[in-house]
Amino acid sequence: MSGPAPDPLRGASCLVLGAGGFIGGHLCGELRRRGASVHGFGRRRSYPEALEGVRWTMGEFADRAALARAVDGAEHVFHLLGGTTPESSNKDPVADLQAGAVASLHLLDICRAAGVRKVVFLSSGGTVYGIPRSVPIHEDAPTDPISAYGVSKLAVEKYLHLYRHLHGLDYAVLRVANPFGPWQDPDRRQGVVPALMQAVLDGRPPEIWGDGRVVRDYLYAADAAEAIAEAAAYAGPHRVFNVGSGVGRSVLDLLRDVGAALGRGTDLTATHKPGRATDVPVNVLDTSLVRREMGWAPRTGWAEALQATAAWLRGRTAR
Amino acid sequence: MSGPAPDPLRGASCLVLGAGGFIGGHLCGELRRRGASVHGFGRRRSYPEALEGVRWTMGEFADRAALARAVDGAEHVFHLLGGTTPESSNKDPVADLQAGAVASLHLLDICRAAGVRKVVFLSSGGTVYGIPRSVPIHEDAPTDPISAYGVSKLAVEKYLHLYRHLHGLDYAVLRVANPFGPWQDPDRRQGVVPALMQAVLDGRPPEIWGDGRVVRDYLYAADAAEAIAEAAAYAGPHRVFNVGSGVGRSVLDLLRDVGAALGRGTDLTATHKPGRATDVPVNVLDTSLVRREMGWAPRTGWAEALQATAAWLRGRTAR
Repeated sequence: MSGPAPDPLRGASCLVLGAGGFIGGHLCGELRRRGASVHGFGRRRSYPEALEGVRWTMGEFADRAALARAVDGAEHVFHLLGGTTPESSNKDPVADLQAGAVASLHLLDICRAAGVRKVVFLSSGGTVYGIPRSVPIHEDAPTDPISAYGVSKLAVEKYLHLYRHLHGLDYAVLRVANPFGPWQDPDRRQGVVPALMQAVLDGRPPEIWGDGRVVRDYLYAADAAEAIAEAAAYAGPHRVFNVGSGVGRSVLDLLRDVGAALGRGTDLTATHKPGRATDVPVNVLDTSLVRREMGWAPRTGWAEALQATAAWLRGRTAR
Repeated sequence: MSGPAPDPLRGASCLVLGAGGFIGGHLCGELRRRGASVHGFGRRRSYPEALEGVRWTMGEFADRAALARAVDGAEHVFHLLGGTTPESSNKDPVADLQAGAVASLHLLDICRAAGVRKVVFLSSGGTVYGIPRSVPIHEDAPTDPISAYGVSKLAVEKYLHLYRHLHGLDYAVLRVANPFGPWQDPDRRQGVVPALMQAVLDGRPPEIWGDGRVVRDYLYAADAAEAIAEAAAYAGPHRVFNVGSGVGRSVLDLLRDVGAALGRGTDLTATHKPGRATDVPVNVLDTSLVRREMGWAPRTGWAEALQATAAWLRGRTAR
């Protein structure tokens, strides 16, 4: 007469590096809901309301002493620190490699010295594969990024594999598709969803890079956070997972649906800017592994997710 | 009535970075034989006889100004610079990444600014794949290195792909198996072939890491050099090539054949040292791509290659 197994995250000590960011806020909330003790570390805390009940330490990723103090005592370390974007990374690949891979290597040394149980790394499903030979993209597909951002994400994945082999440090890599939702800053070029929405709310023509036929896999951030949290609890044999909706939508599709979500009709017209060299023409992830292994699936419908994002942006604009 | 096409390397200006090393010496000789104008750059020139007819510049890979001067005017740049070994890299992965990937990124920036036609990069068929799921290993197999050396080689491969995409800089990656032959220093832990031979020549018991069942793909360096040179001339669609013998031999097999090559019989006994964490159990490369695309195949027989290596070591010892 045993009941359901207790949640392994209940009472677990979780450190979220990059907690002050967009995904970090959603992840902290999800970990709190699962009963974990959550400590956030990062450069800034743009939306303190996202971090309710979370112990907070402000610090730089490059500050190894501060990082070591934060890691001390953590069972699970969620590595969401980045700092660059695919577009900015190509202007200075060396800086991107230093900020991404070198800093991550220092983190792994700290984690193994501290006896961390598992490192969960937020990789990038949108960049590590580069231009796919076919979609949806399976985890075993070739990885040939067309941004330095993707190369350094990939290098961190490889170092995680190496540290497990050499030092027994367990890990999970989540190659997350294009996330969107509340707390994604529309002004920081982080994502196309809030950028389009904010333009419409401001009465500006939305801007699109290229012809708008670029296809992406958009995932609501709260759903992404569920997968990231679950990866810490997961005890199976796999370590690298795609996390996405599995649905491809063009930017033009997105614009139509954004118009509908904002009640502005489905025929918004956009200003087209030149395409970017870092944009792969299509990216849709095969998510069968994470669905099968973790029992995870996105729970938020597309329209509902857009509505929630729009509501947050409206509230933010109104402040 | 056209004759055979002229060799595209005849008269071509070739810069060999790392020319003073073991493979560099063989490559310079091969390029000279094909009529190229050869400029060597490196930290040291251990065997000047390997660089006859080669213009030589002594310099550090980290010295960007010196590197830029060397690259200026070169059509083909052969990137053989490394400096670390798989074993040493795991003691300091950050230093390995700086010496390998960061320095290579600077090199690529220099090459694209100088209008270099093609960069040929010596990668590592023995480390980039990690522990293979099956052998022989195809170029499309998963790449999960178990040494930091392998991770930084892989990162350089990815940056080459990126720079071609972003800047049109052409390249070839050669994942070369375990090379051996003259000019491979038996004292520098570069390779097991000269280490075993030198021990036997010195009357010491040869030392083997682990039980000697580790299987490797050994390739004679002069044959490797032919593939590396040909990669500069190759104009087909592929860019990443395995280069190996395609034959797997255990260290115990090797020891038997080394004994025979040195005329010491086939029953030499070795001292066994603990296995190394960086040693994959087996590594044999599938070389069908380079054979088909470049018409390359190793030309030196196994016994002949061992004899030539032994002759060089004997001559060196006698000096």
